[in-house]
Amino acid sequence: MAVEHKVASRRGLSSRAMETPEEAAAAVGAAMFARDRASQALGMTLEEVLRGYARLRMTVRADMLNGHGTCHGGLVFALADSAFAFACNSRGVLTVAAGCSIEFLAPAREGDELVAEARERSLQGRTGVYDVDVTRAGGDLVATFRGRSAVPR
Amino acid sequence: MAVEHKVASRRGLSSRAMETPEEAAAAVGAAMFARDRASQALGMTLEEVLRGYARLRMTVRADMLNGHGTCHGGLVFALADSAFAFACNSRGVLTVAAGCSIEFLAPAREGDELVAEARERSLQGRTGVYDVDVTRAGGDLVATFRGRSAVPR
Amino acid sequence: MAVEHKVASRRGLSSRAMETPEEAAAAVGAAMFARDRASQALGMTLEEVLRGYARLRMTVRADMLNGHGTCHGGLVFALADSAFAFACNSRGVLTVAAGCSIEFLAPAREGDELVAEARERSLQGRTGVYDVDVTRAGGDLVATFRGRSAVPR
Amino acid sequence: MAVEHKVASRRGLSSRAMETPEEAAAAVGAAMFARDRASQALGMTLEEVLRGYARLRMTVRADMLNGHGTCHGGLVFALADSAFAFACNSRGVLTVAAGCSIEFLAPAREGDELVAEARERSLQGRTGVYDVDVTRAGGDLVATFRGRSAVPR
Repeated sequence: MAVEHKVASRRGLSSRAMETPEEAAAAVGAAMFARDRASQALGMTLEEVLRGYARLRMTVRADMLNGHGTCHGGLVFALADSAFAFACNSRGVLTVAAGCSIEFLAPAREGDELVAEARERSLQGRTGVYDVDVTRAGGDLVATFRGRSAVPR
Repeated sequence: MAVEHKVASRRGLSSRAMETPEEAAAAVGAAMFARDRASQALGMTLEEVLRGYARLRMTVRADMLNGHGTCHGGLVFALADSAFAFACNSRGVLTVAAGCSIEFLAPAREGDELVAEARERSLQGRTGVYDVDVTRAGGDLVATFRGRSAVPR
Repeated sequence: MAVEHKVASRRGLSSRAMETPEEAAAAVGAAMFARDRASQALGMTLEEVLRGYARLRMTVRADMLNGHGTCHGGLVFALADSAFAFACNSRGVLTVAAGCSIEFLAPAREGDELVAEARERSLQGRTGVYDVDVTRAGGDLVATFRGRSAVPR
Repeated sequence: MAVEHKVASRRGLSSRAMETPEEAAAAVGAAMFARDRASQALGMTLEEVLRGYARLRMTVRADMLNGHGTCHGGLVFALADSAFAFACNSRGVLTVAAGCSIEFLAPAREGDELVAEARERSLQGRTGVYDVDVTRAGGDLVATFRGRSAVPR
């Protein structure tokens, strides 16, 4: 069941036929975000979705801090992973993460506004590779992430 | 500032001197978990910490589901990352994640009880490598995670 | 074109029908190694192939040293990657590496005899995950490797 | 023992004092390549070394093919790993690979001329992160590699 089909049926095929690829990517992203309770619960905002690209933002809250008083690595990863998910699903074909790696470069602290930007590096058949950078808004690199996507059968 | 120092000062050096390494690891884990608001907010429970080992548990909640209706990969990662953090800090020396990779093997669904078990593979000087498996309680492998730790200077 | 088909035609279908799965895995490995000029040129020996398992050996030669006088990481990786390839092709279905990660734990030096042992961690449909440890014969861990396999279409 | 010291003593401190950072990086690279028997044996050529950057080239030979008739993944990795090594040692401080990951995007074949280009993404204290792309000369992406470097103590 592709996301595209849900979107198509909800919005009507006739309107879809008139969309540009970028309008379609934005519509797929919006529909997917509306169902993504985890990204919402973490306070993420979806800023932009294009074909093979997505940008999300999240502010580090007190309940996101680990035992060392910095943002839990899992939540930095979650932001990057959401950006990856929106980028790799942007063509409206249901796509999941097969594997990911992340390098943590600087700690994030309470109140930091983090931006994750995902870009498609490769897409061949049912698998793709996406790079995501997580930066402090307007500033330095907090983490760099790489994800491999797969279209399940 | 090492976790050990905080624990030592809170509990008194004389009592520490009488602990076995495993009692010390458990005490470090308990003190670290008490400050770890993120792991608590995600409903994790700390089941066991030994030297170089930790096991945590988390139940997938409705607010952990992504746009595909399965557990957000970032939250599966967060559980593994917490187990990694408790294992690599179990000697009481402040240690952080340098980089991690995860392979997603099966989706987790609402209500699934996930267990993450972290084991030390290598520890040399200030860096270590830890393997973490995330399984559905009593069952199949959901994800396998590898983390590289570093002691910051 | 699966390796199995080549093997089958070379050896005759009637004999294959009488093989155990382990005999079939060994036969696939031997046929694949005979065509693997790179593993041969690096002096690797194929010690054992079972279903989802392979073990290879390689001695570090002077022409394998890097500018620091230790075994080039790419050649430690190559040994692990060959073990991975023999393990993931052991069922006779043509399978390739999609992505791999390696952690270097100790340098290898000229004359060191390295053993790589690959084990299947997960196999679902067309993708698998394999762990490979590279050790100095009878001794310590030199590197740990994880590979993701895919059956091309 | 830093590479820089060797180079400095060989070439004389007075001449070094007059080098630009880029001349120094090129000199370190040339000295390191001269000792790198593995990269030489694989037919690599060092095209350029700048601070935090290196580019190498390698032609796929018949003795680099695996059992599937394509370039052995370990040798694609070796080219990327050499580029990484020259980039992370370009400041003349002895630096080694801690861990690496590679995504294989397209097979390379006999006669293909491969180019690996390494770029520094982050350098903090004793650890760095480098991205390396391997392309067919003038063409498509064959693999993308990420390496984490460390300065041993």
